[in-house]
Amino acid sequence: MEPGPCSRPAEPGHCVSGPAGAGSAFPESPLSVAGAEPGDRLGTVAAVLPAGGCGERMGVRTPKQFCRVLERPLISYTLQAMERVCWIKDIVVTVTGENMEAMRSIIQRYGHKRISLAEAGATRHRSIFNGLKALAEDQPDCKLTKPEVVIIHDAVRPFVEEDILLRVVLAAKEHGAAGAIRPLVSTVISPSADGHLDHSLDRAKHRASEMPQAFLFDVIYEAYQQSSDFDLEFGTECLQLALKYCHRKAKLVEGPPALWKVTYKQDLCAAEAMIKEKISQEICVVMNTKDEESVGHLLEEALRKELNCMKITSTVMDHIGGDIRNFIEQCYSFICVNVVSPDSQETRKLLRILEESSLPLLYPVVVVLVHCFDFTSVLLAQKMESLVWIRGLAKEVKERNILLSGLLLNYSQNFCYGG
Amino acid sequence: MEPGPCSRPAEPGHCVSGPAGAGSAFPESPLSVAGAEPGDRLGTVAAVLPAGGCGERMGVRTPKQFCRVLERPLISYTLQAMERVCWIKDIVVTVTGENMEAMRSIIQRYGHKRISLAEAGATRHRSIFNGLKALAEDQPDCKLTKPEVVIIHDAVRPFVEEDILLRVVLAAKEHGAAGAIRPLVSTVISPSADGHLDHSLDRAKHRASEMPQAFLFDVIYEAYQQSSDFDLEFGTECLQLALKYCHRKAKLVEGPPALWKVTYKQDLCAAEAMIKEKISQEICVVMNTKDEESVGHLLEEALRKELNCMKITSTVMDHIGGDIRNFIEQCYSFICVNVVSPDSQETRKLLRILEESSLPLLYPVVVVLVHCFDFTSVLLAQKMESLVWIRGLAKEVKERNILLSGLLLNYSQNFCYGG
Repeated sequence: MEPGPCSRPAEPGHCVSGPAGAGSAFPESPLSVAGAEPGDRLGTVAAVLPAGGCGERMGVRTPKQFCRVLERPLISYTLQAMERVCWIKDIVVTVTGENMEAMRSIIQRYGHKRISLAEAGATRHRSIFNGLKALAEDQPDCKLTKPEVVIIHDAVRPFVEEDILLRVVLAAKEHGAAGAIRPLVSTVISPSADGHLDHSLDRAKHRASEMPQAFLFDVIYEAYQQSSDFDLEFGTECLQLALKYCHRKAKLVEGPPALWKVTYKQDLCAAEAMIKEKISQEICVVMNTKDEESVGHLLEEALRKELNCMKITSTVMDHIGGDIRNFIEQCYSFICVNVVSPDSQETRKLLRILEESSLPLLYPVVVVLVHCFDFTSVLLAQKMESLVWIRGLAKEVKERNILLSGLLLNYSQNFCYGG
Repeated sequence: MEPGPCSRPAEPGHCVSGPAGAGSAFPESPLSVAGAEPGDRLGTVAAVLPAGGCGERMGVRTPKQFCRVLERPLISYTLQAMERVCWIKDIVVTVTGENMEAMRSIIQRYGHKRISLAEAGATRHRSIFNGLKALAEDQPDCKLTKPEVVIIHDAVRPFVEEDILLRVVLAAKEHGAAGAIRPLVSTVISPSADGHLDHSLDRAKHRASEMPQAFLFDVIYEAYQQSSDFDLEFGTECLQLALKYCHRKAKLVEGPPALWKVTYKQDLCAAEAMIKEKISQEICVVMNTKDEESVGHLLEEALRKELNCMKITSTVMDHIGGDIRNFIEQCYSFICVNVVSPDSQETRKLLRILEESSLPLLYPVVVVLVHCFDFTSVLLAQKMESLVWIRGLAKEVKERNILLSGLLLNYSQNFCYGG
């Protein structure tokens, strides 16, 4: 598998970084250039994800981290993004008591690994503090190892990539504290008490402070231990606490636009569209013949011409289906072409391989079955049987997040009817 | 027509506000409460939309205001949102010389009204200044009337509604300057020269300055005339110019989340999803019989049960199609049910009415034809003919932004096959 520079999220537990030469999704990262195991340079790294918010800005009753995007809770995408980075040893998620069970079932259902749960506090800062306590060895019930560096990230920023995580961690190791920043989209103003403009801030001199942030564990833990109740109630910025209580001026690291925070309803729409785009980059044509003149090969060529922004691959199904397994690591869209005499065994084989993989657990998988008939020689009853079979199968696999549809193709005249 | 409180954008030139009782899309607006013609209270109002940006933040070559959302350039949605407010007399759009022709063809193609074009300057402020000059009667080639109040809005904020426009205009009339604001999503920080945190700003004491803004024309025109080259090159905020040069402390008006600015690629995705949602609020079932037991009525009832968040309406097509005309002002999704003996005349009539309306010009219109057969008594040839006819028709109307698909329904057994 050779993922491109803009790769899709990996499976939970599937580690992106690895020894040099094993293929990294982030070939540009300082890590890959150095060609060393990240753990060697980073020391132990853990992460805290506060997920206790109530999502009032979203205008919906479900807290935004639990809102569903393509049927999966948003926080599961964020966990997936974090756990794919194998040098993050522990991920502590803080959730409110009432959401604890829901969070446990998300972790179980989507197979998330290296996650520990801690109870959220009444404010974001109290939640982060609780997450840090779960990692601090001075706490009586601590089961985790105190890390050298801790990342703090938002549960509602699902598109975080290893590169920016690595850059803030390296900067935190050097400077004690570091955080991602982005240019301001709007001018920031200071209003007067009566709701008039007092002054506007120079946009060029200010930045939006985003997540992830990272800290030497001892620095941020001490900062929280010393924080006043006022800070824990009303403060918004961890970097500011590290500055105020530990005199560490955080290193600021320019992050990519994908760091944006899912805040409003339109952000959920955007997140869904971005994920759909990610999983729609490739179509694999699965056929049951190697014949170069076959419908499958012709279709593959036609798709390549028509959809030149997409990657079109193809494979011939063998008896045990081994070949197809190479594709299902990176592809979510399949066109399965059965020539002339449709062999339902091969279609079933493809569906079984997909079901057994973790693919449809994480994202909807689209399969289009193309059954080729010579309409002049095939009885209506046979065609109808074929349609009824596809409908039944579609209903069955939909429950397992595979979206199946079928096409009957008149092979002799190249003319198709949908089913 | 009785639009709901969260109505879809009206057609270009279709005025939302009107005499009290005529029905307004914004029943909550101060205007509607007062029950008077807005022109009476507002004086003359014009708008300037700078659209000269190059969209570098989007990461695409097309300037973001010209990026297509559901096949239509983003700026057309913004123009539509502005021109539906009938008390805005003139809308001046500033575009670069190289985009002037493209802009003219957008105006013509989508039937935009009350638009004048002016040449954009090298910076946003110079573009706005050029727009103001086009409205100032002291300019030799000015063909427009100087307004009392001028709105400044972004071409890339397509979801602006009459309510917020009205509130900033009323505030500008009273205070000389006014602008929409929103809470900050991220903490704003001030970096030191070497890229470290200097300090973070108190989020509660700051706001994001958004658009629309409005000014007494004489105030903002004077401010621009007095502005230094430095301000015109590097300034980002019109409110600040009104403060600096005319000592007007702008009134700040809290705006809705929908004011967000399309800046990054994810924002384009969000805009598309929001527009799709807006035009998918209603399904109209069109049938050719009043029979309460008909498939159409059963379908309508079933849809009402299944899709309880959507508005389901129905109509019976009469000979001249008059009834359907009431629906096509607010509905973009139609299911056309032809019972037993499909009468293509009625389907053609619906499609003709849709084509003659401005509906598919602005948004894709979805039509599903349901042809009901008793499969036991109908020949295969007849079914195939029906499918072929739908395919041909679908290809034909797709060019006019009508997305047609067809279903053959086995009437006697309630069992359907798609086509």
